[in-house]
Amino acid sequence: MAASQVLISLIFFCFISHAISRPIIIRLPSYQRGDNDSYCSSWRFSVETNNAGCWTTIPSSCKSYVEEYLNGNKYLSDSEVTALDSLAFAETIQIGGDGKDAWVFDIDETLLSNLPYYRIHGYGSEPFNELSFDKWVDLAEAPALPSSLKLYKKLKEKGFTVFLLTGRSEYQRNVTVKNLAFAGYSEWERLILRGTSDEGKPAIVYKSNKRSELVNEGYRIHGNSGDQWSDLSGFAVAARSFKLPNPMYYIP
Amino acid sequence: MAASQVLISLIFFCFISHAISRPIIIRLPSYQRGDNDSYCSSWRFSVETNNAGCWTTIPSSCKSYVEEYLNGNKYLSDSEVTALDSLAFAETIQIGGDGKDAWVFDIDETLLSNLPYYRIHGYGSEPFNELSFDKWVDLAEAPALPSSLKLYKKLKEKGFTVFLLTGRSEYQRNVTVKNLAFAGYSEWERLILRGTSDEGKPAIVYKSNKRSELVNEGYRIHGNSGDQWSDLSGFAVAARSFKLPNPMYYIP
Repeated sequence: MAASQVLISLIFFCFISHAISRPIIIRLPSYQRGDNDSYCSSWRFSVETNNAGCWTTIPSSCKSYVEEYLNGNKYLSDSEVTALDSLAFAETIQIGGDGKDAWVFDIDETLLSNLPYYRIHGYGSEPFNELSFDKWVDLAEAPALPSSLKLYKKLKEKGFTVFLLTGRSEYQRNVTVKNLAFAGYSEWERLILRGTSDEGKPAIVYKSNKRSELVNEGYRIHGNSGDQWSDLSGFAVAARSFKLPNPMYYIP
Repeated sequence: MAASQVLISLIFFCFISHAISRPIIIRLPSYQRGDNDSYCSSWRFSVETNNAGCWTTIPSSCKSYVEEYLNGNKYLSDSEVTALDSLAFAETIQIGGDGKDAWVFDIDETLLSNLPYYRIHGYGSEPFNELSFDKWVDLAEAPALPSSLKLYKKLKEKGFTVFLLTGRSEYQRNVTVKNLAFAGYSEWERLILRGTSDEGKPAIVYKSNKRSELVNEGYRIHGNSGDQWSDLSGFAVAARSFKLPNPMYYIP
């Protein structure tokens, strides 16, 4: 079975599960009543391993847990270990002289952190509001996720050709470039945003298509960093994919 | 790019990283010195998301953390939420009358728990000893992982055709059947073990091949449950895969 067929099946099931209006809710195991942190920790396991599938907002009982996770040391620590894993792998790659050794980065919650926005929008407990989020994007003030900035610089030093592949749209190119510079990023090979023909496509399809184009251009995609499984899965996937933590939202 | 090509790349990199004798070790982020639990928690994130790649033993500093995780409520809770995710998905499937709606289960650390063995073998801190583990397998006394047994029974009730796909070998068929019965499992469609032609293959290849055979027989593999990414990835993957927790060992 080709990867594209697998992908179509995945999306089909994801959409079907939404379409039948039966939200996939993780119920609190009975033995955990009164132990909300334990449940929220397991919910996070479920989300980070992609077991949860499609979901729209975090469980309301887990808002404090997510808040504490993101503002304490854990989020930074998980991100840093992800960057160290990525770097350990990158060090095993023999960089050729042709500029075709590539690494693909997602932007939001990967290179940039929108935590300042989500702090005032319930940490994923409110439904996503595109208008409101776009206003935040227009400010171009999202800070770098510190471990990703370090990783980015080290990969550049090692000679990787870096592609930025984001679900943001072409009309957000200027503010995105401005924000990336504000956060300390530079010298990417190409910033790929959704063009008009990409609008409406699930991220997993759009991103797979774009990676596929890179592969067809002769790039060897060694690594891929993203906070969503839809950044990393599908087809034309990297040799190694690195899942950054994100317990705030899910993008199919 | 076909899934099989992706798979070959993955295995290539996995083997190369071992072959060059540069163990991929996750280093302790500098800001976490003195906060070992935080590091071990991030190490577990890294392992459960497959960011860590190939690894052989748990970090020695995390033995107590892993011990506490497995013997406390967290392991059971994470497993139970995984089972609930699986069941929520299973409930969206319209079962046909042809017996071809399939669910694939791994055995060790999925249907059965080898925790009694690992309790006296350092929780993954000792290198894997096949001889010693095979003696444990011969006892046929591994208990069920409780949430998996519940899930298994519910899937059977719903009419799924259940396949057991394990890395255990054909010579272990009798003890495996005995152990499954001891733990409360019954009425699977087929128990697939490694035959002589499968020996030496990485699990991800062997398991993908076997799932591929099921697909060729006309089965629709809706769900797949396993504690290793090599149970779930590769080709002929299920529509939805469910990763059970396992911070004790890694199988490529």
